[in-house]
Amino acid sequence: MTTNVTTLANGLRVVSHAMPHLETLSLGVWVAIGARHESETEHGISHLLEHMAFKGTAKRTAKAIAEEIETIGGELNAATSLENTAYFARILKGDEGVALEILADIIQNSLFDPQELEREREVILQEIASTRDSPEDIGYDLLQEAAFPDQSVGRPILGTIQSVKSFDQQRLHDFLQRYYVPERMVVSAAGAVHHDVLVRHVEAQFGALTRKSSRVREEARYVGGVRAFNRRYEQSHLLLAFEGPSYHAEDFFAAQVFTGLFGGGMSSRLFQEVRERRGLCYSIYSSAWSLADAGLFSIHAATGSDMMSELSDVVVDELRKVAAEGASDAEVARAKAQLKAGLLMGLESSGARAEQMARHLIGHDRLISSDELIARVDAVSSGHVQSFARRIVASAPSIVVVGSGRQSNAHAQDLAEKLGSRV
Amino acid sequence: MTTNVTTLANGLRVVSHAMPHLETLSLGVWVAIGARHESETEHGISHLLEHMAFKGTAKRTAKAIAEEIETIGGELNAATSLENTAYFARILKGDEGVALEILADIIQNSLFDPQELEREREVILQEIASTRDSPEDIGYDLLQEAAFPDQSVGRPILGTIQSVKSFDQQRLHDFLQRYYVPERMVVSAAGAVHHDVLVRHVEAQFGALTRKSSRVREEARYVGGVRAFNRRYEQSHLLLAFEGPSYHAEDFFAAQVFTGLFGGGMSSRLFQEVRERRGLCYSIYSSAWSLADAGLFSIHAATGSDMMSELSDVVVDELRKVAAEGASDAEVARAKAQLKAGLLMGLESSGARAEQMARHLIGHDRLISSDELIARVDAVSSGHVQSFARRIVASAPSIVVVGSGRQSNAHAQDLAEKLGSRV
Repeated sequence: MTTNVTTLANGLRVVSHAMPHLETLSLGVWVAIGARHESETEHGISHLLEHMAFKGTAKRTAKAIAEEIETIGGELNAATSLENTAYFARILKGDEGVALEILADIIQNSLFDPQELEREREVILQEIASTRDSPEDIGYDLLQEAAFPDQSVGRPILGTIQSVKSFDQQRLHDFLQRYYVPERMVVSAAGAVHHDVLVRHVEAQFGALTRKSSRVREEARYVGGVRAFNRRYEQSHLLLAFEGPSYHAEDFFAAQVFTGLFGGGMSSRLFQEVRERRGLCYSIYSSAWSLADAGLFSIHAATGSDMMSELSDVVVDELRKVAAEGASDAEVARAKAQLKAGLLMGLESSGARAEQMARHLIGHDRLISSDELIARVDAVSSGHVQSFARRIVASAPSIVVVGSGRQSNAHAQDLAEKLGSRV
Repeated sequence: MTTNVTTLANGLRVVSHAMPHLETLSLGVWVAIGARHESETEHGISHLLEHMAFKGTAKRTAKAIAEEIETIGGELNAATSLENTAYFARILKGDEGVALEILADIIQNSLFDPQELEREREVILQEIASTRDSPEDIGYDLLQEAAFPDQSVGRPILGTIQSVKSFDQQRLHDFLQRYYVPERMVVSAAGAVHHDVLVRHVEAQFGALTRKSSRVREEARYVGGVRAFNRRYEQSHLLLAFEGPSYHAEDFFAAQVFTGLFGGGMSSRLFQEVRERRGLCYSIYSSAWSLADAGLFSIHAATGSDMMSELSDVVVDELRKVAAEGASDAEVARAKAQLKAGLLMGLESSGARAEQMARHLIGHDRLISSDELIARVDAVSSGHVQSFARRIVASAPSIVVVGSGRQSNAHAQDLAEKLGSRV
C-alpha cells in the first residue's frame, strides 16, 4: 500500500492511497471553504452552494448528474462543515475518470439557475426545520453560539430562514469565483486507484483553474455562556463545554486521551458513574472537537427533567475529581489503546482514509503518518491529562439545557452556579 | 480470501471470512431470538436481556467487562432486532481469544442481579423516552403497528414502560435458558482471522452448551391501517407502507430493484419529482424491509404541514404511474448497478461482512455467495418490477402521519382516500 501526493502547477493537490485488495474506491474534492469563512451577510452560503452544485451545469441537468453517477453504480454526496466543503463519490474500480469529470463539472460549471435556486431554498428550509425537531441539534447549535458568540464559528452551517432567502445567482457565482481556487482544493482518493492515472485525470479536469489569492478567516475567540430552550419533550438535554485545543495545539492529543477516559467508551468515568452506577442516562459521552485555531471539549447527556439536578451534580463532581486527583496509569493506557485501535480500524475504510488525507493536507499542509499519530498518542502521560483537566475546570463554561417545561433556564443557571461561573 | 463454516457437535455454527490485508477483525455472536419471538407478557425482554448481559457475570462486574475489552483497544456492542440479538466486537488481530471469552461469559453467565436490573430499567426508560422525542421513531413504531396489529412483529423492540418494569431476575434467566441454545447461535468473524483458531476458541467457550429445542415464532400477518400522532413540530412526517416480500420470497430481489428506482438514490423517481422538481422535502426515500415470513415496502418523507396534501398527491401519482407504465430498461439497469455496487462496497467492511454471513446462516441455513446474489439481481426484469408495483398499489396500505397541529389524522385519512382504501 502506497501513498502519493502531487501538486499541480496551479497549486491544487492530489493525494492517493492505493489499497490494491479493494474492488472499489472513495474519491472526493475537498475545498478549504466553509461556514467559518462567511461574512455575516453570507451566513449559510457555503452550504447553499454545495446544494446548488447538484442542480445543473452548462452541460448537465440535475437529473443527468444523478443518472450518470448512478448508472455506473456510484454514489455521489457532499457535506459542508465549518472549515471545508467536500464533494465525494464511492465508485467501482476503473470509474475514477467518469466520477472526476462529473465532480469537476459540478464544482466549476454550475449554473445556479434562478428557478432551481428557488426550489433548492425550499429544500434547505425543510432541512433547517428537521434540525428544529431534534432537541440534540438545537442543543448543539446553542452550544456553538454560547462558546463563540457573534462569530462565524458560532453560527449554524445551514444558515437561517432569512439568510437562505437572501442569496441570488450572482452572489453564488461571486462566492464560487472567490473561494473555489486551486490552492484551496485537494483531490483525495483511497482504494482501487493508481496515482498516475488519478493525477492525469485531475490535471485534465482541474488544470485550467488559475491561482488566485483569497481572504483568510477571522480568528475564533472562545467566550462561553449559558443558553436554554424549552418545548414539550420527554427528556432534557444537558450540554456542557469548555475551551479545547485546536488541532495544531500542543495538547491536542492530551485532550483526545482525556475525553476517552472521561466520557469515551463503556469503561469511561462518566459512563460508569452516570449510566452504570446510577442509571440516569441512556446516552452520555464527552468529545473533543478541533478547528485550526480553536476547539471545544464537550459533554452531552439526556435524562428526565426531574433528574437533571442529580446529573449536573455528578458531572461537576467527576470533573473536579479528575482535575484534583488525575487519572490512573491504567485508565490512561486504556484510553490510548482505544485511540490507537480506532485509528487502525478507521484507516481500513477507503472513505475514512480519503477524508483523513484531505484533512491533513488542508489543515497541516502535509500528511501525517499513522506511525506519527500513534507516537503522539503514546507520548501523552497522566501528567498531561491532569493538566488538561485542571485547565478545563478553571475555564469559562458553555452551558445549554434543552428541555421540557419552563425549567431549562433554571437547570442551566443551577449548573453554572455549581461550576462557580460568573454568569 | 476464504470463507469457512464449521458446525459444532451441539449445533452451534462458526463462520469466518479471512481478509488477510486487514490488521483488525469484526467478531460477534448472533442469536436467533428477538422481539418477534416474545409472547405478549414478554414484550421487550429480548432487549432488556441484551442490556443486562453487560451488567455482570459470575466472575466479572459490569466495570470489568468494559475495562477488559477496552484495555485491548476493542469495542463491544450489541443490538436487538425483531429476529436476532447480536453481541459483537471490533478488535485488533490476535485478540479473538480474549474477545470470545468475554462474549461467551456475558452470554452464558450473566447474573441479572436485582439491583443492577433496577438501574438498567431506568436506562431503558430513558432510551424509550429518547425515541419519543424523535418524530421519525414515533412514525416507524406506528407504521409497524398499523402493518402488523396485535402481533409481536408489530410491537416496539424496546417494550413499553409497563412491560420493562414487569421483568425480574427469574424471568430473564428462564428466557435465556429457553432461547439461548446452540442451534440458534452463530459465531461470525471477518477480517484478520484464521478459521481453525477461531473454531478452537468457540469450541472451548461454547462447546459445553447442550442442544435443546425451542419454540418457533408465530407467523406474521400483514393487515394495514391508519395511525396519526400530533405534537408541536416544525415538520410533518408521512409514512406509507404496503405488504412486501419476505427474504425467502421469489420477488425479494424485484422489490429491491423497485425500491432503488422508485425511491432509492438521487436519480430515483421520488427524489427527482418530490425534491428536485418541487422542492417539497429535504429527505424522501423508499425502502424494502424483510423478515423470514413477511416484509414491508415503505416510503418516508417529511415536509411542512401546509404541503402535506401536495406531497401525498405526488406520491400516489408516482405509484400509479409506475404500476401502469412500468419502468424503463435504463432505470432498471441503473437500480441493478447500484444494488450490485452497494453489495461489493458493503463486503469491503469486516463488520458488514460478518453480519451478512450470520444473517445468511440464520435466515437461509446457508451462505449465499456474492456471485449468486449478483445473478439474482441480474435476473430481475422490468416486467418483474412492474408486477411488483401493481401488486403494491392493489394492496392495503399502512399510513402514518406524525405532525403538528391537529391535522395529522385528517392528512392520514386524506391519503387513505386518495389510495381508494377502505379505512
